[in-house]
Amino acid sequence: MVLLDGKKTSNAIKDEIASQVSSLVASGEKKPHLAAVIVGNDGASLTYVASKVKACERVGFESTLVKLPETISEKELLHTILQLNTNPKIDGYIVQLPLPKHIDEQNILLAIDPKKDVDGFHPVNVGRMALDLPTFLPATPYGIMELLERYDVETSGKNVLVIGRSHIVGRPMSILMSQKRKSGNATVTIAHSHTKQLSTLTKTADIIVAALGIPEFLTGDMVKNDVTIIDVGITRVADNTKPKGYYITGDVHFDSVSKKASYITPVPGGVGPMTIAMLLKNTLLARNRHAN
Amino acid sequence: MVLLDGKKTSNAIKDEIASQVSSLVASGEKKPHLAAVIVGNDGASLTYVASKVKACERVGFESTLVKLPETISEKELLHTILQLNTNPKIDGYIVQLPLPKHIDEQNILLAIDPKKDVDGFHPVNVGRMALDLPTFLPATPYGIMELLERYDVETSGKNVLVIGRSHIVGRPMSILMSQKRKSGNATVTIAHSHTKQLSTLTKTADIIVAALGIPEFLTGDMVKNDVTIIDVGITRVADNTKPKGYYITGDVHFDSVSKKASYITPVPGGVGPMTIAMLLKNTLLARNRHAN
Repeated sequence: MVLLDGKKTSNAIKDEIASQVSSLVASGEKKPHLAAVIVGNDGASLTYVASKVKACERVGFESTLVKLPETISEKELLHTILQLNTNPKIDGYIVQLPLPKHIDEQNILLAIDPKKDVDGFHPVNVGRMALDLPTFLPATPYGIMELLERYDVETSGKNVLVIGRSHIVGRPMSILMSQKRKSGNATVTIAHSHTKQLSTLTKTADIIVAALGIPEFLTGDMVKNDVTIIDVGITRVADNTKPKGYYITGDVHFDSVSKKASYITPVPGGVGPMTIAMLLKNTLLARNRHAN
Repeated sequence: MVLLDGKKTSNAIKDEIASQVSSLVASGEKKPHLAAVIVGNDGASLTYVASKVKACERVGFESTLVKLPETISEKELLHTILQLNTNPKIDGYIVQLPLPKHIDEQNILLAIDPKKDVDGFHPVNVGRMALDLPTFLPATPYGIMELLERYDVETSGKNVLVIGRSHIVGRPMSILMSQKRKSGNATVTIAHSHTKQLSTLTKTADIIVAALGIPEFLTGDMVKNDVTIIDVGITRVADNTKPKGYYITGDVHFDSVSKKASYITPVPGGVGPMTIAMLLKNTLLARNRHAN
């Protein structure tokens, strides 16, 4: 069993990016600059954004944190978006989700300039992905593709089961892995809440991408030997025996599944760190496009 | 076995559209206006475009055929596209593919105003489809979804196999049928040239969408009883015993497969006529959006 070590791999990617930033700085050129917009005080969101800002520092990017009150109106937030769109210093930016309920997320995402949409959530970037045109791939799927590629996991002709059809993970994974590309050319099945006899599908899959958000859903008896497992889930499970009162787990029951797997991502330390690394990669790409 | 009669269904849809156009005309409002751009003299393309123009007449739409010489430059064609984008009389238009080799199709498709892109090929419309936002669905997949719906074919929780990953049929079908929508909620597998043991997949599928372009590829021994078959293929096969010297067939060997199928589309008269009906539906939608 090989651990698909997202932490190690993301560090390697960050080193590559840092070295490119050093070259830019050495030739007197502009550093990449990522902005992150956060609305309100949700603990998990603040943690995510803080880790993104920290990652920027690590690779030598400029970063700007735009922290807005929970009570901001949609109109005011749209105004901030337009400022970020036109600010030539900002190469790319993200709007941390979820937004407060009185704001229509879709309206906000549609207002982001696709050229600065380093999360890859704007329809034009989603469409470009589906059409296999150059674009910003959404960071989590992009990270998974990169992880598979760097570990030389064979995907061509393999039966891949993607569990979950979310716009940010399941859907793009099902598209990317079935395209003619590196870590692609797989025969992909997308399963979701309406799927019947899921365990029949899990038992025949060569590669499973679990992105359904149910902690430790996938167990050892549900998979075949030598399966490759990508665990996208990340849930805090309450546990009084732990110092923090909870533990972090994925959608995969690691102990039982890892016994049968040929490759598996741990949680934490698998897909999560890759996501941040790919956000940085997209920001560097945005910067290089603007510069050309 | 029930024949999914695309001809009959498309006629019903055309009647519905014609009745809506009559209402518009009766209240002194503008008719929908579709333009079709064709470059060169490819026989099949001319036939397709002629049938689209004829369908416009049938439902009371205005139509404009923009016929351009094979030798037109990409720049000149882009100029035509920009004129169509800004012409307020035109609600929607299509550029008949394929284009001559000296023209970059992607550049042309990207230049079409998404609001007039009734073929649904522009990245922003593809992205909106993938994100399940209101859009122009590409006509062939849209026609298949409509056919399934009008014949009350149950798709929720069914195992659907889409054979072919083209941008205009296979990919959108795999997305649409797995979405939470009418004729959706299926567990969808997308197969293609790299798929191994395809017949294992065809034998377990409840619904097969064959869009690979190999005449009579899918045979009776490859499917299970009560399967639903959507045949997207349309190929001319040379045959000296036929008056025209050829016959038209799909990707499905109709005689053997229809014996086991619960529902099946014929070729011709299945998916083909639906495609044109949905192009008209998109044009009506474009007109109504512009009017509002």
